[in-house]
Amino acid sequence: MELLKNKILKDGKIIGQDVLKVDSFLNHQIDIKLFNEIGKEFKRRFEGKDITKILTIEASGIGIACITAQYFNVPVVFAKKQEGSNMDKENYEADVFSFTKNKSYKIKVSKNYIKPEDKILIIDDFLANANAASGLIDVVKQANAEVSGIGIVIEKGFQNGREIIKEKNIQLESLAIIESMGNGKIVFKN
Amino acid sequence: MELLKNKILKDGKIIGQDVLKVDSFLNHQIDIKLFNEIGKEFKRRFEGKDITKILTIEASGIGIACITAQYFNVPVVFAKKQEGSNMDKENYEADVFSFTKNKSYKIKVSKNYIKPEDKILIIDDFLANANAASGLIDVVKQANAEVSGIGIVIEKGFQNGREIIKEKNIQLESLAIIESMGNGKIVFKN
Repeated sequence: MELLKNKILKDGKIIGQDVLKVDSFLNHQIDIKLFNEIGKEFKRRFEGKDITKILTIEASGIGIACITAQYFNVPVVFAKKQEGSNMDKENYEADVFSFTKNKSYKIKVSKNYIKPEDKILIIDDFLANANAASGLIDVVKQANAEVSGIGIVIEKGFQNGREIIKEKNIQLESLAIIESMGNGKIVFKN
Repeated sequence: MELLKNKILKDGKIIGQDVLKVDSFLNHQIDIKLFNEIGKEFKRRFEGKDITKILTIEASGIGIACITAQYFNVPVVFAKKQEGSNMDKENYEADVFSFTKNKSYKIKVSKNYIKPEDKILIIDDFLANANAASGLIDVVKQANAEVSGIGIVIEKGFQNGREIIKEKNIQLESLAIIESMGNGKIVFKN
């Protein structure tokens, strides 16, 4: 997706060897017009797929999932990382390891909101080692529902997330795949 | 907003004396069509106001803010509760006490994303004692920017949030105001 790649090149900041900071438009400040184009592009990539619900994870995935859901005409469910006092007691749970935060956390989705008949599109901002995606897939499997596909905004193509998803035979669509980002230069995969 | 009130009556669940659980459509599963109507209603309520940016707080505010921002044609910024390793070091910060979680937490907004020329619409899912709203107002003030208004989906009219906001001379628009919810019965304020 050229618009996205150009935005990453213009406003993305590389920190260290493998952190791409895109908080000016993706995960702190949000460029809604760009998100609309992202949503349309996900719709195009998953055209014809049977999708009943979009599943994402708080917090960065929520905006992308909500804007995208408009093009699929389905509700969104977001997995929670923290438990509120009024959350359901009956949840699907999975453990996710975060490299950026260097710790594991539990994600939870109420059993009320994924049903066996659901065809789930998983949406997230980044794919690196597929830790969050694997946790979300796990949650969908626990519900005996189906993963129709995974839509990612930015994939770090130099990490192993794609292989992990491909082994599960799930359609993975990443709108920008970074092949390398050494020496302060971002190179996209064609 | 009748559509919202009917949804609350139909799907909201009262827990104890003052917790309203709306996670089937507002803050866990998200009814995107309802959010579109909420966004249009906020646009109507703040018609004519100069608004350059919408500010909200993770996680429940993000979806509402993003869908609403489409009608205002402005970007969204969401205050973070947790610090990632790649967050800016220069932030506006405020302390917020959460009654549902019974603890204080710090919210942070990068100084890059609120500027003195900004006219900010604050959006959130609930207003009770205005703790989160006060923290967000504080952040906007620190940036020497202006709060153009506060848009709330559900206000607990039996708590003191409205008084606190009114003392600050800020336009407050709540789409559903609950007057009481004792004995398992929700009564809206007209």
